[in-house]
Amino acid sequence: MKLSELGEFALIERIATGRGGPAGPRVLRGVGDDCAVIEAGGGLLRLVTTDMLVEGVHFDLETTSPSDLGAKAMAVNLSDVAAMGGRPLEAYISLALPSKLELAWVERLYAGIDAQAAAAKVAVLGGDTTASGRDLVINVALVGEVQQGQALYRDGARPGDRVFVSGTLGEAAAGLHALQRGHGDEPAARGLVTRQLLPQPHLEQAAQIAACGLASAMIDISDGLAADLGHICAASGVGCRLEQRLVEAATSEELRAYCRRGDLDPLQLALSGGEDYVLLLTGDPGLAGALALHELGEITAEEQRLLLCADGAATPLSGGWDHFGAL
Amino acid sequence: MKLSELGEFALIERIATGRGGPAGPRVLRGVGDDCAVIEAGGGLLRLVTTDMLVEGVHFDLETTSPSDLGAKAMAVNLSDVAAMGGRPLEAYISLALPSKLELAWVERLYAGIDAQAAAAKVAVLGGDTTASGRDLVINVALVGEVQQGQALYRDGARPGDRVFVSGTLGEAAAGLHALQRGHGDEPAARGLVTRQLLPQPHLEQAAQIAACGLASAMIDISDGLAADLGHICAASGVGCRLEQRLVEAATSEELRAYCRRGDLDPLQLALSGGEDYVLLLTGDPGLAGALALHELGEITAEEQRLLLCADGAATPLSGGWDHFGAL
Repeated sequence: MKLSELGEFALIERIATGRGGPAGPRVLRGVGDDCAVIEAGGGLLRLVTTDMLVEGVHFDLETTSPSDLGAKAMAVNLSDVAAMGGRPLEAYISLALPSKLELAWVERLYAGIDAQAAAAKVAVLGGDTTASGRDLVINVALVGEVQQGQALYRDGARPGDRVFVSGTLGEAAAGLHALQRGHGDEPAARGLVTRQLLPQPHLEQAAQIAACGLASAMIDISDGLAADLGHICAASGVGCRLEQRLVEAATSEELRAYCRRGDLDPLQLALSGGEDYVLLLTGDPGLAGALALHELGEITAEEQRLLLCADGAATPLSGGWDHFGAL
Repeated sequence: MKLSELGEFALIERIATGRGGPAGPRVLRGVGDDCAVIEAGGGLLRLVTTDMLVEGVHFDLETTSPSDLGAKAMAVNLSDVAAMGGRPLEAYISLALPSKLELAWVERLYAGIDAQAAAAKVAVLGGDTTASGRDLVINVALVGEVQQGQALYRDGARPGDRVFVSGTLGEAAAGLHALQRGHGDEPAARGLVTRQLLPQPHLEQAAQIAACGLASAMIDISDGLAADLGHICAASGVGCRLEQRLVEAATSEELRAYCRRGDLDPLQLALSGGEDYVLLLTGDPGLAGALALHELGEITAEEQRLLLCADGAATPLSGGWDHFGAL
């Protein structure tokens, strides 16, 4: 069977099966969460994540500047550490570079990496720089840490927990829509395009959430609200009821204005749009008061059943549902 | 300036300049050695290395089996941990896979990764699996550890130290030569091709070398003896005199027989052939007696001067000399 028939999530499930279980007493999580988690001694857990961005798949050099690309490669990894409630420490960059590239271009790419790293107080250490025959590829491996007892996993959600996000939803997907239609430079799309090209990992919010002790599970939104909430529900053996009015309230006026002009549905973008890189978490109702979070709904005991509720009716949510168990 | 004009080593130097210095008291080495080195507490140092292999640059799917490719991607990283005197712990695999690939092919790739990892007692933990439009790319990030005080760096060589390798030289380059000329299947080339396609990291030797306390500097041979010895000499501010008869004695009969048939110079392959992934080290003359090592010559005080001595004459060695300071 070709990978194109199998699909990416099914492939990951095949690879993950029988792999990544605790290989020793020190490995607490191998696969299946945003980071691997290893006991580091001294009351600390070490976090490791790695993400690869491939030209033509994850970015288009026609619409992405080198510094934005470098910053985004860092941001998606930083967001994985944030999703565990952790603090990033060191990044290791692997680059495969077509020889037709200009040195100045590569220096701007690194300027973006360095700026994002500096903002997160991360040291950019050794890596690998190599030639590529065709496509540009960036891999970032990021090491972080979190206090034992403060780490937040995908499998901690319990019935009755409330569901929150740490920022507005759907803007990154709308930004991609604007770029693909060639009107990314218009003032009305500028902020949306920035969410797509230059996402900001929610590291400070993650630290506050982890420290307050009121959260039960966390993930970052890379695949979209429905898909990533699905990952939490699958890992935790629970379901969820999202309130449509609350999801709509977690969108920005800029997104809604862009959608009105383009005949798009902001609710659909909020539910299914990927790459927002905000934190999605569950926990005590008190979280909303303690931190600036958007509340979206409630965790239920109905295993893996994700509902969207409006006007007394509940409709099953799709989007990511097929991928359950895969991540 | 295009990267093709600048060259890979000069690019790495540009990237490394002003980067990777200690970002905090815990980072002992950022760039410039086989691994980054970070204080981990409890008398241990954490090692991190990452290497990316790109289709068409580092491997050819026509001549490499998927399991050999997976094993080699692990081996080159394991060899970097060995070069520090360290013990590997966890590997994180990023794969960019063209969708035309068969699932069975990917499973064989992972079988090679798993076999090499199991042999080295390494846990294969989370990673990233993504689509690629064209080329297959594998990145491995490897975490290891070494006892504080046992880590071996490139900059520890001192005048009067002897130079050793932990295995025979030039075979991987001869194997590549055989593959490129289409006679890799001939019995006379089989062992050489295996050295090229399925290198074995010298982890046990590395542990013995680190534990015996007699070595002063170490690196693994990926670029070739002259180039990698050049890296040690540049980092240590020393020079070296290699004895030609000793270098020749560190070649196998299989290599010499292959060279006789093909009108190749085994000495040249031993000096310049890359990818042998044996350990190159300097230290006390007693090392040769304590461990099964090939002695090659002596470290001198003549900074960055690398000489090959035979019959009372000394000729300067090239090969990697231009790269000094780059790594």
